[in-house]
Amino acid sequence: MISVILTGTGNVARHMFNAFQKSGQVEVKQVFNHRKKTLDYFSKKTKTTTSIKEVETADFYIVAVSDDITLQTCELLKNKPGIIAHTSGNQALPEFKNSGVFYPLQTFSKEKNVDFSEIPICVEANSNEAEQKLVQLGNVLSENVQVLNGEQRKKLHLAAVFACNFSNHVMALSEKICRENDIEFSLLRKLILETAEKAVVHSPRKMQTGPAIRRDKATLRSHEESLENKPELLEVYKLLSQSIKDYGNEL
Amino acid sequence: MISVILTGTGNVARHMFNAFQKSGQVEVKQVFNHRKKTLDYFSKKTKTTTSIKEVETADFYIVAVSDDITLQTCELLKNKPGIIAHTSGNQALPEFKNSGVFYPLQTFSKEKNVDFSEIPICVEANSNEAEQKLVQLGNVLSENVQVLNGEQRKKLHLAAVFACNFSNHVMALSEKICRENDIEFSLLRKLILETAEKAVVHSPRKMQTGPAIRRDKATLRSHEESLENKPELLEVYKLLSQSIKDYGNEL
Repeated sequence: MISVILTGTGNVARHMFNAFQKSGQVEVKQVFNHRKKTLDYFSKKTKTTTSIKEVETADFYIVAVSDDITLQTCELLKNKPGIIAHTSGNQALPEFKNSGVFYPLQTFSKEKNVDFSEIPICVEANSNEAEQKLVQLGNVLSENVQVLNGEQRKKLHLAAVFACNFSNHVMALSEKICRENDIEFSLLRKLILETAEKAVVHSPRKMQTGPAIRRDKATLRSHEESLENKPELLEVYKLLSQSIKDYGNEL
Repeated sequence: MISVILTGTGNVARHMFNAFQKSGQVEVKQVFNHRKKTLDYFSKKTKTTTSIKEVETADFYIVAVSDDITLQTCELLKNKPGIIAHTSGNQALPEFKNSGVFYPLQTFSKEKNVDFSEIPICVEANSNEAEQKLVQLGNVLSENVQVLNGEQRKKLHLAAVFACNFSNHVMALSEKICRENDIEFSLLRKLILETAEKAVVHSPRKMQTGPAIRRDKATLRSHEESLENKPELLEVYKLLSQSIKDYGNEL
């Protein structure tokens, strides 16, 4: 049985905890967190502590805390015997022996259960041995474990911002346009799902449609005119249309 | 049996032709198009003509041609006895009696068959009678027929540009970041599909995640720094992050 001590109590920690328990191959021996209150979620299921002094010995210490305290939390644990790995997409590999990164590429929300088997886990480590062990741990949860260096992981995190946070935002702006014009946003349901499906099956670069890629000046002008009293939407419309045209020219 | 004469030979015309034929309730009596060559697709299945003089009598004349010639093509047909309706999201309702709009909200590609039953059809007409008849025709194809006025239809078309063309483009930029850093874009597959599913089930406004909505300045700065030599990506990153923050403030 692989032993893990989890640090942190947020969504990543919770989902990972449940996935480890479910696997039957990993025991989460203990959950460590400075604030007692948020440990309640775990306290019926395993040991918990708020004190670094009480943290036990384990094969892995997984640090799933917010980005701004990730590295200092790893530092706290660095004299422990196992591998200390954080789950952040954007923080550097800690600079000590046996450190690593164990980054699940997914957004987690409290409400929704996730199937870890489909979530890519990106691994980086300070030694080949630690890398191998983190890959093994990743394989317990996921069918897709990737070794990425720090630069690649950061870029993947950035790519995820474009593909997910930004695509969600333009959908939110679309919803806003609908709401302000008494149109049901649900009319776009099918089109949105189809856009995402096409993008992951084919290349989104090849799947681009719409007035900008067609160089349909009349429609572009008519859309811009209809946004004249919505400067915040107009700015996004103009920049993304220009970006689509420019990217089309690169091909 | 409802009779339809189709004008145009592009993707919309083809998919609509097939859907009408399949319904068993509509007969496409004839396909009219100025260029003979593109009529080949239809000529084995129904009558075709390149001459306005040969266009027969029917209940509906559906004009599915490119936006720049939509209104003049409707004008050509205006003395015909039935209802003359175009399929454009962005063109005005033609200004003559018995005109209408019959706009299917979907992107059509040659390769892929579409299930019309899930595609919203937006109807507008110059008379109540024509409106009713177009709604009936829409119900033959789709489970979701909506009567929208011209302004709403234009805004829906604009909303579709944001939700689909723009979301596809930010995914294309994401793919570019991956490609330039030797990262498999397929790592983002699950995350992209989940983003789209969440957006249509819940509201995308409520589903926004990422550094901008969290006001995570350190990550925003680190992403911007990593795009310093990619001004075209940096500009999109900054504007959309700002737009996410501003929209968050509106709530």
